[in-house]
Amino acid sequence: MNKIYIIGIGPGKEEMMTGQALRILRQCDTIIGYTVYLELLEDDLKDKELMSTPMLQEEKRCVMCYEEAMKGKKVALICSGDAGIYGMASLMYEIGKAYPECEIEVVPGVTAASSGAAVLGAPLNHDFCVISLSDLLTPWDKIEKRLLLAAQADFAMAIYNPSSKKRHDYLQKACDILLREIEPDRCCGYVENIGRDGTKYTVCTLKELREKKVNMFTTVFIGNSTAEIIDGKLVTKRGYPSERR
Amino acid sequence: MNKIYIIGIGPGKEEMMTGQALRILRQCDTIIGYTVYLELLEDDLKDKELMSTPMLQEEKRCVMCYEEAMKGKKVALICSGDAGIYGMASLMYEIGKAYPECEIEVVPGVTAASSGAAVLGAPLNHDFCVISLSDLLTPWDKIEKRLLLAAQADFAMAIYNPSSKKRHDYLQKACDILLREIEPDRCCGYVENIGRDGTKYTVCTLKELREKKVNMFTTVFIGNSTAEIIDGKLVTKRGYPSERR
Repeated sequence: MNKIYIIGIGPGKEEMMTGQALRILRQCDTIIGYTVYLELLEDDLKDKELMSTPMLQEEKRCVMCYEEAMKGKKVALICSGDAGIYGMASLMYEIGKAYPECEIEVVPGVTAASSGAAVLGAPLNHDFCVISLSDLLTPWDKIEKRLLLAAQADFAMAIYNPSSKKRHDYLQKACDILLREIEPDRCCGYVENIGRDGTKYTVCTLKELREKKVNMFTTVFIGNSTAEIIDGKLVTKRGYPSERR
Repeated sequence: MNKIYIIGIGPGKEEMMTGQALRILRQCDTIIGYTVYLELLEDDLKDKELMSTPMLQEEKRCVMCYEEAMKGKKVALICSGDAGIYGMASLMYEIGKAYPECEIEVVPGVTAASSGAAVLGAPLNHDFCVISLSDLLTPWDKIEKRLLLAAQADFAMAIYNPSSKKRHDYLQKACDILLREIEPDRCCGYVENIGRDGTKYTVCTLKELREKKVNMFTTVFIGNSTAEIIDGKLVTKRGYPSERR
């Protein structure tokens, strides 16, 4: 069987990868991924055959995996964070319909919701949702609807892709939607460069968040209604006070 | 500074831990955790001082961490999955208010949403939410409301704690709520014993899920409206077809 592993490498540093991910990467012949992720790999993996396609050419990258596997190679496709959370796992399943000779296996990793939350304190320590503000593959009105319903549900939130060159005002737009349901002084925060050099976190209110300029390497967190700042960290309580139950 | 690490050890096997988590565990003097999690540790960690409290005595376990750290020990508190997702991170921050001499650090791990999704295919490969059906710390009407709003938002979902001895019909009740918004043949699935011996996954429709008896070591997944079964795996598409945008 021609085998392909779709591996979540976590936020960046090799130490943030699971032992399983590292073992499988070491056993593979070929590692395929977006160039930035290939560069994050430690030197001991750089003797592998490394292959890439430019950003946004995800389909081409998936096809490349199958084509290389069909040559008899053991292939790893690497994704940042978790392979199944905004990663390539589902596209690999879709494209795999044309390659019944190949078997694929998803190897999980630490997604930015977890790694960013750990830096910020404990912002997701109750029911939560994860929403991407990228409208490349999702209509914006669907994203708006999700933000609004998530606020009504009192979910803690992790917001991925809060900004890009073309979408510099999306976080502001998202905050405006959340502010329809959530009080302006709700505890929030964000983390830049998680698991890489220059990790930095900021705690602020939702009203303040609206004015922040964040870059594309940022994950934003919205506390739920129980959230508070403890010792400079953002903490969403793991339960509701008994008097409110 | 008296240091305590709150460490997510992933679903079970040591190989599913990050390198960072393993390194810090090896550097600690004392490892504190629920007995079942301590037993999951490999032998090379069992020469550490291991301490525990029975289940549900989480506050006592947190106090124990601080008291041991105050003796000058380097302490690790272990949680299954991720320490900040239904883990002990937020309670540690709360109890830490009484121990300003102690510094705490959260070390992230692979949560069941990620590790279970990897077994099942790619069920969370778009915006998603994580909801626990345990009403020990959350009023049930709040859980119901979240399920309903999450269905309206077309989130993919990971459902934690779908059952317990006392709550044998909660998954059925949850499915009934979801069925108010979601078609009965929506693609769903669940994974038992993730990352441990006896891992097993099942793919089914929402209507079928309603009739399933699952145990407390199960994580349930609800696909979003794009989800389909591909080669026996549950796959939520990473985007919406362009004709619908």
